[in-house]
Amino acid sequence: MPHDVPATTSPASVGARSAGAVGEEHAPAFDRESLHIYDTTLRDGTQQEGLSLSVADKLVVARHLDELGVGFIEGGWPGSNPKDAEFFRRARTELDLRGALLTAFGSTRRASKAVGDDPQVAALRDAGTAVVCLVAKADRRHVERALRTTPAENLAMIRDTVRYLTAEGKRVFVDAEHFFDGHRADADYALEMVRTAAEAGAEVVVLCDTNGGMLPTRIGDVVATALESTGARLGIHCHDDAACAVANSLVAIEAGATHVQGTANGYGERCGNANLFSVIAGLETKLGRRVLPDGRLRELVRVSHAIDEVTNSAPNSSRPYVGASAFAHKAGLHASAVKVDPDMYQHIDPAEVGNDMRMLVSELAGRATLELKGREMGLDLSGEREALGRVLELVKDREAAGYSYEAAEASFELVLLDEVSGRERYFTLESWRVIVEQRAGGEVVSEATVKVHSHGERHVSTAEGNGPVNALDTALRAALEKAYPGLADLDLVDYKVRILDGRHGTGAVTRVLVETSDGRGRWDTIGVDENIIAASWVALQDAVTYGLRRQGERPDPDAV
Amino acid sequence: MPHDVPATTSPASVGARSAGAVGEEHAPAFDRESLHIYDTTLRDGTQQEGLSLSVADKLVVARHLDELGVGFIEGGWPGSNPKDAEFFRRARTELDLRGALLTAFGSTRRASKAVGDDPQVAALRDAGTAVVCLVAKADRRHVERALRTTPAENLAMIRDTVRYLTAEGKRVFVDAEHFFDGHRADADYALEMVRTAAEAGAEVVVLCDTNGGMLPTRIGDVVATALESTGARLGIHCHDDAACAVANSLVAIEAGATHVQGTANGYGERCGNANLFSVIAGLETKLGRRVLPDGRLRELVRVSHAIDEVTNSAPNSSRPYVGASAFAHKAGLHASAVKVDPDMYQHIDPAEVGNDMRMLVSELAGRATLELKGREMGLDLSGEREALGRVLELVKDREAAGYSYEAAEASFELVLLDEVSGRERYFTLESWRVIVEQRAGGEVVSEATVKVHSHGERHVSTAEGNGPVNALDTALRAALEKAYPGLADLDLVDYKVRILDGRHGTGAVTRVLVETSDGRGRWDTIGVDENIIAASWVALQDAVTYGLRRQGERPDPDAV
Repeated sequence: MPHDVPATTSPASVGARSAGAVGEEHAPAFDRESLHIYDTTLRDGTQQEGLSLSVADKLVVARHLDELGVGFIEGGWPGSNPKDAEFFRRARTELDLRGALLTAFGSTRRASKAVGDDPQVAALRDAGTAVVCLVAKADRRHVERALRTTPAENLAMIRDTVRYLTAEGKRVFVDAEHFFDGHRADADYALEMVRTAAEAGAEVVVLCDTNGGMLPTRIGDVVATALESTGARLGIHCHDDAACAVANSLVAIEAGATHVQGTANGYGERCGNANLFSVIAGLETKLGRRVLPDGRLRELVRVSHAIDEVTNSAPNSSRPYVGASAFAHKAGLHASAVKVDPDMYQHIDPAEVGNDMRMLVSELAGRATLELKGREMGLDLSGEREALGRVLELVKDREAAGYSYEAAEASFELVLLDEVSGRERYFTLESWRVIVEQRAGGEVVSEATVKVHSHGERHVSTAEGNGPVNALDTALRAALEKAYPGLADLDLVDYKVRILDGRHGTGAVTRVLVETSDGRGRWDTIGVDENIIAASWVALQDAVTYGLRRQGERPDPDAV
Repeated sequence: MPHDVPATTSPASVGARSAGAVGEEHAPAFDRESLHIYDTTLRDGTQQEGLSLSVADKLVVARHLDELGVGFIEGGWPGSNPKDAEFFRRARTELDLRGALLTAFGSTRRASKAVGDDPQVAALRDAGTAVVCLVAKADRRHVERALRTTPAENLAMIRDTVRYLTAEGKRVFVDAEHFFDGHRADADYALEMVRTAAEAGAEVVVLCDTNGGMLPTRIGDVVATALESTGARLGIHCHDDAACAVANSLVAIEAGATHVQGTANGYGERCGNANLFSVIAGLETKLGRRVLPDGRLRELVRVSHAIDEVTNSAPNSSRPYVGASAFAHKAGLHASAVKVDPDMYQHIDPAEVGNDMRMLVSELAGRATLELKGREMGLDLSGEREALGRVLELVKDREAAGYSYEAAEASFELVLLDEVSGRERYFTLESWRVIVEQRAGGEVVSEATVKVHSHGERHVSTAEGNGPVNALDTALRAALEKAYPGLADLDLVDYKVRILDGRHGTGAVTRVLVETSDGRGRWDTIGVDENIIAASWVALQDAVTYGLRRQGERPDPDAV
C-alpha cells in the first residue's frame, strides 16, 4: 500500500490551538514553565559522531522543535565558535519562534579574571536571548585537575557569572557538569555548588550525568537528597552510556526535578543524550504530565523524522514511540490476537504520537497476517487460501535471498496480485546497458540505453544521468513515454542501497530500495542482485509497473 | 590507523579460566545459578523486523553467547515451527555448549485438553533440553479475550503443564506474559497466577512487560510487591517501547528479581527487547554482581559485533558499552581535558568490556584532537601547527561535502600525510570505464577498463566482475600488478554505500566506504561523489595507495 503524502500540519494550524487551552477532561492545564522541556539538540546533540549541521540546518531544526512545542531551545555556544555566533545573529531576524525560548549556552568566567572582562561571557550577554545556560563544574576533581583552580575560586566564578548575567536581565540556568560523579566523590562540594548557583540567582540548577553512567535507583535517590538539602529548583541532563538516559530522566522528574534536558532522537556524543522525544512521550502518556501544547504530541513522529532528514540520519526504525517498527507486529500468533483487540498488544494508542500500527509481511507471518495486510491494501483475501500459501512460500524464498518486503510494500503488492489475480504487465524488456566512464580529461559521464517492446512497438532510448541509476531510470521512462505519457509525472524521490554481507560462502548481494512519487502519493519497491545495477533495474521496473497500475493504464496483453 | 585483525579468543583459552575461580579481591564468587542470565535472542530476538536466521545461523549465535558465558540460551519454540524443531535436533549433536544450558520455549497445554495429549507440550518434552520455559497468561483480560477461556482454566493449564514437565525431569521456568499490565488491571489474579506456577514446581516465574510500556519506578514497586506476596523466585523480561528496558531490568534486579531475560544487542519486535549485553555490563561494572565467568566481560564488544555479523545487522555505533562511538570523544574542549585524565571523562574503563577510547576527527575537533590522533597513528605532530590548520580546514570542507573521515581512517591518514610531508603517489590515472548490461538473452555482464601510468609505463587492463565495483577493483589492480606484484595480496573485504540526501537544492551524493585487507590488517577508505561508480573509484584508489604504502613499495616520482 503506498503511503500517501501526509498533509503537513502548517504552523498556522498548530498555532490555532492556543497554548493554554484546556485539553481533555481532567488533564492538567498546560504551561511551559512548571516543567521545563529543554532541548539541546543544536548544542549537545551536534557532538554526535558523524553529525554536522550548517547554520541553515540549525534554523530548520529550531523551527521543527518550536512546532512540536518544547519550552527552550539551546542554540549553541556563541562564545566558542563562529558558526554558533552566526546562528544567534541570524536567529534574531530569521527565527520567529511561536512559543519556545531560544537559549544561549556558555561557561562561567575564566579563573582569576573579572567577569566583565571575559569575552566569552560578553558573547552570552550579547547573543540576543532571554535565557542563558551556563555550564559549571560540580565535581571537585574536575575543578582541581581539569580547570586547575581551587574549589573556592570555582564557586566564585559561578557566583560572579550568574550575578552578572541576571543583572543584565537574563534568566540564568546552570548546568552542574559531572554532578552525579562529583556527588559520589565529594557530596558536600557538589551540593555547595548547587546552593551557590541558586543563591546567586540561577533559576534552575541542572544536575548532569555528564559521563552517562548512572542507574535510575541512584539518580532518584540523589535528586531527592539534593532537593531536600539545597531547596533549589533542579533540572536533569542525562546521557545514555548505561542505556538508562530516558529512564533516569523520568525517575529524576518523579523525584522532584522540574526541568529536563535532552535532544531530538537522542543525538549526542558517544551513546547519545536522553532522547527528549521519548521523555516527552513518557511524561505525557504515562505520567500524566502536560508538557506540550494541546495536540502537539501527535506531531512527534513527523517532527522526529523531519529532524532526521535535516541531520541526514537514517531514522532508526526501532526507536521508541516514533520508529516505523515501534508499533509493528510480526509474529503470526500475535497477529491473529491483534485482530481481536489491538489495545491489549500495544502500550499506548500509536495515534497519540502520530504513529500507526502495522502488520509485517515476513516468513514468520501466518495467513492471518497476510489477510490483514490484504485488508490494508483493500483486497479481500479470505477465500484465497491456496494463493496465500504460495505467497508465503515465495516471500520466504525471496527474503532468504535478501529481499525485505517489509520495506517495499509496492513490490509486495505486485507479488500478491501476481499470485491472486495474475500480474498485469505493461512492457517486455529486450535489453539494457549502462556505461560510466572517467575520460582522459577527468570528466565522468553516465549513459544508459534501454530497449523495450510495448503494445506491438519496439522502443529504444538512450539517456545520460548524473549517475548510472539516474541514467537507467531516465532511459526506461523515455522508452515507455510514447506508450504511457503519464509516466512523465513519476519522480524517483529516494534511492537506498544496502550491501548484504555474503555469509556461508555465498557472495555479497546488494539490496536496492527505490521510492517513487507521482505528486499524490509515494511507493517503495525493491530489487536484490549481486550486481548493484541489476538490483536497481528490478526495483525501477517494479516502480514503473506500480505507477502505471496506479494511473489506471491499459496493460499490454502480449507483454511477458 | 588500520585496525589489525584481533586474535580471536579461542574457546579453549576462554575455558581455561575456570568458571568458579575466584576473581579480583572482594569480588563475589561467580555461579550461573544465583542470578540467571537468560538469553532469548534465538526466540524473541528473531521477532525483529527484517531479522531472519537460518538454523546454521542460530547455532553460530548460540556458540557466541556460550563463549560470552550467559547461563541460559533459549533456542526457539520446537512445537511451533519446523525450523525451530530442526534447530533442537541439530543442537544435540552440533552444539557443544561449555557452560550455558539450552532451553526450549513453548506454551502451556491448550484449554480443555489433557496435557498428555498436547503435541506442542510433547515437542517441549522431547526437545532434548534440561530446561523448559513456558509462556502463560498473567493478564485476566488476555485469558478471557485472546485465549477465550476462564481464569480458572488458565491456572489449571499452568498447573498441569508445569507438573507434567517437572515430572518428566525438566527444570521449568514460567514467563508470566503481560504480567505488569495484568497486575494493573487485576493484581489479585496476576499474583495468583505467579503463585500457581511456583506451587506447581516452576523454579522461576518471569514477570514480563510484554508490551514494553512500563517505567522503572513502577517496575521496582511491583516486583517488590510480587516478591513479598508470592515468595516465588522471580525473573524479569522487558521490552524497550518506553526506552526503559535496560533500566527496568536493573531496577527489577535491585528489587529482588534473580533472573533476567534479554537479547543480544537488544534485538526484538517493535523497539526490541532489553539489551542483555547492556544489562550484563551494568550488573558487572556498576552493581558489583558477578554474572559472567572470569574475564568474559572483555569479550562483550567482540561477541556483540560477531552476532551483528551473523544477523546481518549494521552495528549501531552509539550502542552503550559496545558501540564504536561509545567511548569516542569529539569536542575539541573535551579532547584537551581527556589528555589530562581519561578516567574523569568515561563512566567505566572501556577495556573492561573490550572497547577502546577513541578521538574523533571532525570539523569540531581542535588541534589537540588532531595531535592525539597523530599519536595514535605514530606521528609526532606537535611542531606542525600550520599543517594541522590546513588539515582542519580540508576536513571541514570535505565533511561538508559528505565525507566522513571518522569511518575511514586510512583515507584520513593519507590526507594528513599529504599536508604534513607530501603524499607519495604510485600511479597516474589516464581513464577508466565501466559497462554493465543485461543482454537480450537475460544475462547480466559487468566489465571495466582502467588505463594508468606508473614508473614510465602505460598499463591498460580490462576485467569482468560480478558487479561494476568488483570489475573496476579487479581492473585497477590488474593494471598495477606488473609494477607492484604485492597488490595480489590485497582483498576488498567490505563495501558499504550510503546515499546522502540532497538538501537545500543540491543533488544527492553517494558515500562509499571500502574495507581492504592484506591478510595482516584491514583499513578503511572513503569516496564521495554524486555518481556511485566515481565515488567507488576514489575509495578504491585510496585503498590501493594505502596498501602500497603499507607494503613499503617505491612511489613513482613522476606520478601526479
